[in-house]
Amino acid sequence: MTGTVRIFDTTLRDGEQAPGFSMTEAGKLAMAHALARLNVDVVEAGFAAASPGDFRAVARIAAEVDGPVICSLARATRGDIEAAAAALEAAPRKRIHVFLGTSPLHREHKLNMSPQAVLERIGTMVAFAREHAEDVEFSAEDAIRTERGFLVEALSIAARAGATTLNVPDTVGYATPEEIYELFCSLRKQVERPRGVIFSAHCHDDLGMAVANSLAAVRGGARQIECAVNGIGERAGNCALEDAVMALHTRRDAFGLTTGIDTRQIMAASRTLSQVTNTHPPRNKAIVGANAFAHEAGIHQHGVLAKRETYEIMKPEDVGLASNAIVLGKHSGKHALAARARELGWTLEGEALEQAFAAFKAVADEVGLVDSARLIAILEGEAEGTPANLWALSRLEIRAPIAANGQPIARVELDHGERGRVTDLAHAPGALDAAFQAVSQIMDMPARVEAIEMQYIAADPGEPAEDGQGADVLVEIQISAAHGSFAGRARGRDIIPACVSAFIDALNNACAVRRRRKALSPAAA
Amino acid sequence: MTGTVRIFDTTLRDGEQAPGFSMTEAGKLAMAHALARLNVDVVEAGFAAASPGDFRAVARIAAEVDGPVICSLARATRGDIEAAAAALEAAPRKRIHVFLGTSPLHREHKLNMSPQAVLERIGTMVAFAREHAEDVEFSAEDAIRTERGFLVEALSIAARAGATTLNVPDTVGYATPEEIYELFCSLRKQVERPRGVIFSAHCHDDLGMAVANSLAAVRGGARQIECAVNGIGERAGNCALEDAVMALHTRRDAFGLTTGIDTRQIMAASRTLSQVTNTHPPRNKAIVGANAFAHEAGIHQHGVLAKRETYEIMKPEDVGLASNAIVLGKHSGKHALAARARELGWTLEGEALEQAFAAFKAVADEVGLVDSARLIAILEGEAEGTPANLWALSRLEIRAPIAANGQPIARVELDHGERGRVTDLAHAPGALDAAFQAVSQIMDMPARVEAIEMQYIAADPGEPAEDGQGADVLVEIQISAAHGSFAGRARGRDIIPACVSAFIDALNNACAVRRRRKALSPAAA
Repeated sequence: MTGTVRIFDTTLRDGEQAPGFSMTEAGKLAMAHALARLNVDVVEAGFAAASPGDFRAVARIAAEVDGPVICSLARATRGDIEAAAAALEAAPRKRIHVFLGTSPLHREHKLNMSPQAVLERIGTMVAFAREHAEDVEFSAEDAIRTERGFLVEALSIAARAGATTLNVPDTVGYATPEEIYELFCSLRKQVERPRGVIFSAHCHDDLGMAVANSLAAVRGGARQIECAVNGIGERAGNCALEDAVMALHTRRDAFGLTTGIDTRQIMAASRTLSQVTNTHPPRNKAIVGANAFAHEAGIHQHGVLAKRETYEIMKPEDVGLASNAIVLGKHSGKHALAARARELGWTLEGEALEQAFAAFKAVADEVGLVDSARLIAILEGEAEGTPANLWALSRLEIRAPIAANGQPIARVELDHGERGRVTDLAHAPGALDAAFQAVSQIMDMPARVEAIEMQYIAADPGEPAEDGQGADVLVEIQISAAHGSFAGRARGRDIIPACVSAFIDALNNACAVRRRRKALSPAAA
Repeated sequence: MTGTVRIFDTTLRDGEQAPGFSMTEAGKLAMAHALARLNVDVVEAGFAAASPGDFRAVARIAAEVDGPVICSLARATRGDIEAAAAALEAAPRKRIHVFLGTSPLHREHKLNMSPQAVLERIGTMVAFAREHAEDVEFSAEDAIRTERGFLVEALSIAARAGATTLNVPDTVGYATPEEIYELFCSLRKQVERPRGVIFSAHCHDDLGMAVANSLAAVRGGARQIECAVNGIGERAGNCALEDAVMALHTRRDAFGLTTGIDTRQIMAASRTLSQVTNTHPPRNKAIVGANAFAHEAGIHQHGVLAKRETYEIMKPEDVGLASNAIVLGKHSGKHALAARARELGWTLEGEALEQAFAAFKAVADEVGLVDSARLIAILEGEAEGTPANLWALSRLEIRAPIAANGQPIARVELDHGERGRVTDLAHAPGALDAAFQAVSQIMDMPARVEAIEMQYIAADPGEPAEDGQGADVLVEIQISAAHGSFAGRARGRDIIPACVSAFIDALNNACAVRRRRKALSPAAA
């Protein structure tokens, strides 16, 4: 097989439709720009007839986003198609995406239409859409559960009426790759269509197979797949754009096809979506999860397939990650330790490596993940859990009534193994910000908080707590300082001290790395 | 095909090994019990030789968990195998899982062994393991990149030495379903083995295809698949147990195979893992994500495949969810509104439905998700965004210095559309708990906090804030009250008021539902 597969992105339509993934108009616009930088072929910007808000969002994206074809969904009615056309008016390249249910279930229970009426409606509405746009996609909703002969007829009529893309959705997400492959092979043979009309797959992940099903469709002849960034979408979501694209790129030896995607924009698009929806992909999400490239050292050198076909290696840079994170923890080996130490300017070999590894293992068994501050302390020979040059929270007071008009004032007291106890004050619109600022002043490390994740760890349900909820709070924080990004974590009984301790933990990491760099190149200090 | 597929669970070994998913010994034990209730065939409890902590965890699980075979991983060395055997001693049914790299990359760069030495080591170490256990699994690490002939030889030797399960891992997660299917078909033909020796697949999700690859292996003849709950594991994780199991169950028409899993325990196992690792699966995770069964009304009635084969329908009850959540939001239609209203005791038809729907749409466009309190307000005819009988936070003070020895005291002032302003005090070990308690007292609604998720929404990076970090906090809270579970959310500039507002939002929902139930059946009041 040769050629390219078009990437149709439905993050802003099917994705946005899912509970918890709503986006504001500004958020949709930011995401559409990220998709344009990713170089997707088609951006499905929304469903113009669904609400005035949807209409406005489609219209703004059509007017402001350059590059991809901009598309609006429309039911097979004149009103919907006219709304789509009006919303898309400003787009240089536009697509109207008309859908109608074709399965018996949809015909009888949802549409209350005879098979003949469904076919007629497809023909007239696709033709009507073509009066408003050169580029029309037709979707046979619930195609997977449509009688094969009827589906062939419906798609042939859509093609005859002017549809340029014929989409075959697995609306309920139950198909297997073998079924999808067989279906597309047979549609390719049986559907009558002018040259240039292509098939498209729209797969859902209800059984965890959306990516494999999309690629099976491609093997069966589909030349468009409908995807969403981070795999969001109704129920278990759509085919994850990043997975399908990287599978096609990484396994070009198996698929023989390319996409137009600039893969180095994948992480940026994923992060924009997380910001816009306030929802991060899980650590173990393929490609874009925090662990996806957190390899142990050594596995990096991907080689050659046993059957002698070389395949392209997936490198963190290929998806826009600055570098892979070698995470050091209790399962890490000597090679990983040596590699991370090398980044910090230590060359560890022989006996020195053995000693450092033993010290590292002792700390790792105690605290789990070993961050930069602790690692530097180990390598500097202070193998204890709490090296002398770390700061810790000893007392925190929030002075002002929190909801008063004045800004809250935080008074922070930190202890340091060598410098003793230091106190400072700061005020800010939020109590937490005020405390962060006081900590930054004491530790002499300006930093910007990028994200905080907090988990409320409920007490064992079997043992109701006597005092309040009896729960702990676990806080993870990401900060950026002038010389890099750092993480911190803390657990505690009370929320603000736990957040402040996590912030201090992150600043300890930032300080340790800065100290180490100064030690390595005193001129730069 | 007929027969059953064994489910080998590696949540506690490959899963626990991934950054961010470490578990305590107590957590591992709780998870192992959950896996036993799920009725997995094999629990891989850990890697006994990795550390004293790992050894202890395997030994406790072996001693305390009834039902599944308990397994420990071991490198192909006498020391590792003896450690595994010692840790497993108390288990009534035990398995030693011996692995050795077979690919050129592993032989040359990792093991520094000749092909002949690798084969000899496999034979002697599998035989040695059989001296300690009847049930021995051999894994050819990096099998996918091993020369086919050498892999056949390695597996044949392992079988001859007494291995009862031959595991074929896709260690780097790059294979496609077609390759996996072909590989297992050919191994099944070529590997010499006694009757009863079975093949196993261990797939990683680096390209989003772990589930499809595992099922392709099953089609190719594998009769064990290695899975992890919530799909956790190294990098992008392992095959998600719940996806593979529900695919086999739901699509028995396609696979013709069963598993021993009690699927109704799936949600419980997933929740135990979330609690033990403090990490929830994403909303859009298949089967166990919050959205997985959040169908729109109407799609429920799954029917019959177009090709006339009936397939088993996946119902929320099948995976242990009490009922499906019909989530109402701006994309919801009239049917969904009518269904949710019916649950709350309203029968909406004709003009009444039209009116309620228009009011609902107006609120949904404004606030996104429409929760129970708002929906009841709408149905009671108060279509405004803030119905009169909701409480809202007007003032919050935390009285004691937060880190002092005494408990913090929260003073909370709430406003109510009808009852005006009410104030109360409470103290607890945590400031947040104290505030929750004061709110519960005012609203006369005891509730247990199940989870809080907080997101720190950084200001636009382009515009550094003048005051502090310039960030907002978005809080989502889940509570349980005597009559059900409820959710609340709030966004604000400061963390404690935002958490308290989210708690009030959840209690408003709980109060609205309680009020409504009393109205429907006054006797029960």
